[in-house]
Amino acid sequence: MIPRGVRDFPPEEMRKRNFVLDKIAQIYRSYGYREMETPAFEFLDVLTAKKAGGESINKEIFKFEDLGGRWMGLRFDFTVPIARFVAQNPNLPKPFKRFQIGRVWRYEEPQAGRFREFWQADVDVFGSTNVESDLDTLSAVIAALKELGFNDFVVKINSRKLLEEIAATAGVKREFAADFFRVIDKLEKIGEKGVKQELKEKKFPVSENLFKLILQEGAPEKILSQIKKEIKDKKPAEELEDFFKLAKSFGISEYLKLSLSLARGLDYYTGIVFEIKIKGAEKYGSVAGGGRYDNLIALYGKESVPAVGLSIGVERILEIMDEKKMFPNFEGEPKVLVVPIGQTLEKAIELTQKLRSEKISTEIDLMRRNVGKLMNYANTLQIPYVVVIGENELKEKKVTLRDMKTGKQELLNEKDLIKRLK
Amino acid sequence: MIPRGVRDFPPEEMRKRNFVLDKIAQIYRSYGYREMETPAFEFLDVLTAKKAGGESINKEIFKFEDLGGRWMGLRFDFTVPIARFVAQNPNLPKPFKRFQIGRVWRYEEPQAGRFREFWQADVDVFGSTNVESDLDTLSAVIAALKELGFNDFVVKINSRKLLEEIAATAGVKREFAADFFRVIDKLEKIGEKGVKQELKEKKFPVSENLFKLILQEGAPEKILSQIKKEIKDKKPAEELEDFFKLAKSFGISEYLKLSLSLARGLDYYTGIVFEIKIKGAEKYGSVAGGGRYDNLIALYGKESVPAVGLSIGVERILEIMDEKKMFPNFEGEPKVLVVPIGQTLEKAIELTQKLRSEKISTEIDLMRRNVGKLMNYANTLQIPYVVVIGENELKEKKVTLRDMKTGKQELLNEKDLIKRLK
Repeated sequence: MIPRGVRDFPPEEMRKRNFVLDKIAQIYRSYGYREMETPAFEFLDVLTAKKAGGESINKEIFKFEDLGGRWMGLRFDFTVPIARFVAQNPNLPKPFKRFQIGRVWRYEEPQAGRFREFWQADVDVFGSTNVESDLDTLSAVIAALKELGFNDFVVKINSRKLLEEIAATAGVKREFAADFFRVIDKLEKIGEKGVKQELKEKKFPVSENLFKLILQEGAPEKILSQIKKEIKDKKPAEELEDFFKLAKSFGISEYLKLSLSLARGLDYYTGIVFEIKIKGAEKYGSVAGGGRYDNLIALYGKESVPAVGLSIGVERILEIMDEKKMFPNFEGEPKVLVVPIGQTLEKAIELTQKLRSEKISTEIDLMRRNVGKLMNYANTLQIPYVVVIGENELKEKKVTLRDMKTGKQELLNEKDLIKRLK
Repeated sequence: MIPRGVRDFPPEEMRKRNFVLDKIAQIYRSYGYREMETPAFEFLDVLTAKKAGGESINKEIFKFEDLGGRWMGLRFDFTVPIARFVAQNPNLPKPFKRFQIGRVWRYEEPQAGRFREFWQADVDVFGSTNVESDLDTLSAVIAALKELGFNDFVVKINSRKLLEEIAATAGVKREFAADFFRVIDKLEKIGEKGVKQELKEKKFPVSENLFKLILQEGAPEKILSQIKKEIKDKKPAEELEDFFKLAKSFGISEYLKLSLSLARGLDYYTGIVFEIKIKGAEKYGSVAGGGRYDNLIALYGKESVPAVGLSIGVERILEIMDEKKMFPNFEGEPKVLVVPIGQTLEKAIELTQKLRSEKISTEIDLMRRNVGKLMNYANTLQIPYVVVIGENELKEKKVTLRDMKTGKQELLNEKDLIKRLK
């Protein structure tokens, strides 16, 4: 009754999701990013624009022809739509810092942690080429992870420009560079030997010396000074040096690791790239990733606008937080169930409306059930308080408040009841 | 570059939208409704199930064939998906009270206030047949409208069952009842004469006496006592009497008006129906509507589950609030821009991170601009405060805080700065 790879989110699931999304949004806001939204679908040719997402993603787009005969596609990420938006609005004050949280759709084979409809939380800066903008987006994502309760994670950093320089040094032709990146990006999957083998098969002429460099991962200073000796144009390495230097001021150095084999799948990246994994939850893959994509916006407009940003994969975050029991003990919702006994329905409704007007989340029996059934219902929904109004209470102008956890009951007037429940 | 009838929501627009959506969600929660979500698309045959939305809406569904050859459709409302969900989950504790806020899609001709992608905010109760559940959903929507600042609105009430009884009294055959409802629902559009004319053309045998009754609108007591004299089965009228009586306890009587010509477009309604218009903004049509739909869930499962609910049309609310200048003066976002002068970038970044960790929404110059340009930028974004760190400030371990509204400047240490900005 429900298509493969998409899901319903019942209230219990939705609460966890909202907990995560609210915390991420709150942090993004504190970093000065402003929320915006783009449509769920775009013209298909916008989504598939040359190099936008790369070949493989085009096959995964949910597409349809509208009644006017135009082809549309559901967005597969937020980067392509925001690039289209920025191109279309050349007069946006720069830098333009926005975040976007919502759903995207990809026709992939569903598996553990992978769905056809899933949430992403993106944060991007448009208009700046300075490394502090790369660091600003990355810091925002790191702060969001910390706010969610993650403390042990690794951020791998690399630079596409540096990779290009390495490829050039190795003698890989420009048109094969993307393919070369894909091979070395497999290091974690297929190991040193596998990568070496594949480089050989594809006839990428990487020297032993250079290969050793590519394998490097860790503190940036030493690796960068080594790499600078090997490559001709030293700018990409110097840019990374600046990046790691300013990272200290941003207070995020402890999480960063230079990883020369990191390339990131999407074709649109042009500069520094990031990938974040949670320690002890590596099987979930990366929970966030991104990088600089200075050429994407020019695909949709006259001007070229530098851009950098990251995306958090919300489903993975949710699964890891579930597995690691990182969610707080949520209180039951609603907070109060009002139970009329005897001829007190009207009074009970009035009280319910009073509590609601005080912003106390209150439900009143809507099924005219007996007290026993109502107590069961309150327990099932883990509603923390029940307020009973019987005819005796009515006479005394009081109500009985029952704490469902302790079983303790009190006879209170309306004023004290509100005070107790607030 | 963007398909017809869908829109981007830049930060300024999104803020208004979030203001509205947050207030609605907050009220729905206070009424004990719990948030949930369903997928953006469903199997097409779920959306077009007999009578689900009625014939006309089927033409408006955005549909597509997935790679597996199954037909999907983007949801056109939340009622059909939630009915499918409730049918699919027969063990949900009842009543099941949920709200859902999000986007739906309809291929309609775009016009003022009507889009192909638009937001709805739904609130529904499943499992109860009692009028207090109709009133519970209606009260939640009325409270949401009041929370948004609306005080002058009219809620038209009618009952499909009563209409059926009127149709039967008039001698309209059962199979023509829906058509009959559609004609009298046009009262506001084509007037008394128009309706009379159309009833004649369609050969609906409505007596002069009954026609006068149908035209009635206003306080329910008198109309219902009149109508009870005319109809055979008096239950639908008595149910309305109960409804209006309990409405007093819910504190919403002042807004309600019985309107015997109200039928509501969608075919799935079976009982009491509602429609809300804002006074002085009638040209926008109804801003919320709904009713009881006791037969919809049985379309998707074995069990029949009674259901009632309403939907708020978010776009119309936004347009009316814009027109009537009902939005508060939002403060600029972010709250602070940190401006380094001279060799103070690192210190400025550290301060920025400190402010952010205190949950103060802070942006730092990412483009290495001069002070003049940065002040312009702050003014353009209406950022309320600028913090300047020059080399003198650095020496004194202080910063200059500038209030952008008053132009007042102060030299403060970090602690006092945070105190001032919180």
